[in-house]
Amino acid sequence: MTHAGTVRVAVDAIGGDRAPGTVLGGVESALEADPALHVCLVGPAAVVEPYAAAHDRCEPVVAHESIGMAEPAAQSVRAKKDSSIVVGCRLVREGAADAFFSAGNTGACMAAATLTMGRVDGIHRPAIATIIPTVGAPVVLLDVGANADCKPEYLVQFARMGALYAETVLGVSAPRIALLNIGEEPSKGSQLAVEAHGLMANQVAGFMGNVEGRDVTAGVADVIVTDGFTGNVVLKVLEGVSATLLGQVKEALTANVVTSLAAALTRPSLARLKDRLNPDTYGGAPLLGVNGVCIIGHGSSSDRAVAAALDVAATAVRADLTGRISQAV
Amino acid sequence: MTHAGTVRVAVDAIGGDRAPGTVLGGVESALEADPALHVCLVGPAAVVEPYAAAHDRCEPVVAHESIGMAEPAAQSVRAKKDSSIVVGCRLVREGAADAFFSAGNTGACMAAATLTMGRVDGIHRPAIATIIPTVGAPVVLLDVGANADCKPEYLVQFARMGALYAETVLGVSAPRIALLNIGEEPSKGSQLAVEAHGLMANQVAGFMGNVEGRDVTAGVADVIVTDGFTGNVVLKVLEGVSATLLGQVKEALTANVVTSLAAALTRPSLARLKDRLNPDTYGGAPLLGVNGVCIIGHGSSSDRAVAAALDVAATAVRADLTGRISQAV
Repeated sequence: MTHAGTVRVAVDAIGGDRAPGTVLGGVESALEADPALHVCLVGPAAVVEPYAAAHDRCEPVVAHESIGMAEPAAQSVRAKKDSSIVVGCRLVREGAADAFFSAGNTGACMAAATLTMGRVDGIHRPAIATIIPTVGAPVVLLDVGANADCKPEYLVQFARMGALYAETVLGVSAPRIALLNIGEEPSKGSQLAVEAHGLMANQVAGFMGNVEGRDVTAGVADVIVTDGFTGNVVLKVLEGVSATLLGQVKEALTANVVTSLAAALTRPSLARLKDRLNPDTYGGAPLLGVNGVCIIGHGSSSDRAVAAALDVAATAVRADLTGRISQAV
Repeated sequence: MTHAGTVRVAVDAIGGDRAPGTVLGGVESALEADPALHVCLVGPAAVVEPYAAAHDRCEPVVAHESIGMAEPAAQSVRAKKDSSIVVGCRLVREGAADAFFSAGNTGACMAAATLTMGRVDGIHRPAIATIIPTVGAPVVLLDVGANADCKPEYLVQFARMGALYAETVLGVSAPRIALLNIGEEPSKGSQLAVEAHGLMANQVAGFMGNVEGRDVTAGVADVIVTDGFTGNVVLKVLEGVSATLLGQVKEALTANVVTSLAAALTRPSLARLKDRLNPDTYGGAPLLGVNGVCIIGHGSSSDRAVAAALDVAATAVRADLTGRISQAV
């Protein structure tokens, strides 16, 4: 990859279940991998100052408050103006950073980014996109939780934003866009799905029609659009079942001495499979439609996930994802 | 299991992708396993008459029409009064059978059962329940497709019907009932979910609150309630990902000579796992809330799935599931 210019990412040093450890580890990997990356590390002085002093292209930004993973989102963001999440978003709004990353409280990141950076003109609702690893090419699924209740016109914008994300960050040209529904025919599904289908068929380039739940992991579409309720349920069902199934496979393979021996031999293959299906590869979920790049990591983000998320953030900035979304509306 | 009395099940001989073969195979197993089971085999004379002549406790009912898997449901049911699906439902309405089973067109079965048998007094909308195999106890998930758009009061009734199904057919005493949502707090989720939570907390015995997508396969609840759009997407995501993941595991295990040898040794364990997760064990999905027992099989139902569905039908009849639903409303 070419690093076509300096990118400054504000990073929440204390967001995530394993922060600051995994965040700092991920920042280090990202700085090494991308010589044009600069990081504004946001958090308590005791965490960010020594780290910044020891790393090139890393600047400390002290924030005295923190928002916990389980705190109510909107209230915390309003009450804690000096929290790492709010300060990080403010750096983007003020132009001191090009992007913001946090593996902290998702709701708080969403609220802070929307309130602080503001929405792109014309965008009804920002949406969270996530990348679902599949057997073939990965799929961009959105919205996965920003909007529990949606109107058909929101889904049209989600489709356009998802397509731009697939193009700029995943490098997919002419992405195939589908609507998640419970039947293939345009007349099938909820009132929302039927109306969204009608609008998308006329207004969204690359719209291929409805797909069903079983297609989510089949790689038949590049972008799958749905409301934030359904999308969040799907994402979490996938997380749950992947963990359950791989756990069951492991258990089945270690059930007795013979299979245990065999399992030892198959472990590297299974580890590669697990790795391929690991969402850490894709780092974090962008909040699309706000005025600035905002990537939200899973609370359990590893070093590797943080580094991948910073790479996604830098790629999105260099490709001017926000500007393209603005033009597309 | 005790077979406490004769049960007559009307069976659609030609419903399903592999009918009549798998249907007839399943009927044979079910008749052998349950000496008090009687089958009204509904379909073309050429299929049902020789089979009934060769089997005790099996009576042929000739139906001259058939509804294909992809035909529009409501129209077909109205137009084809002599189809196996409509005739089968009519047998239940007329008291000639206690239950109906088909692995054919799901929408047509739903429409025919609702139109012909009618709804239980007081039931807003019938719902399709399915059983999700999990690591622990199986979970009843409903609605999985009968109602794409729901009102909160429908979900309250789904909860009660699902609980009665779990009690009578799965033998769960005091089932734990949960609402599928995108957060655990009562205030989280869509407007539908928030309102349904409020009603269920007051009106549903055994209501444990919200669960999220990752809990669907975790065995934390006995009954999970959702609207038919979300439920159908979840069911199909699970079907898709199970096939994908187990396929990937197999591929990973047969990637080279060493792992292939090991895979051969682990095959029986994996086969047992696949078997445990196989929905065929549970046969079919009941349409709850109609005036009679109606079990709808997956289009790809095997012999074993058909036999299991007939066992479910007989159990539901013997436990007077319909009567209990009527009393609970």
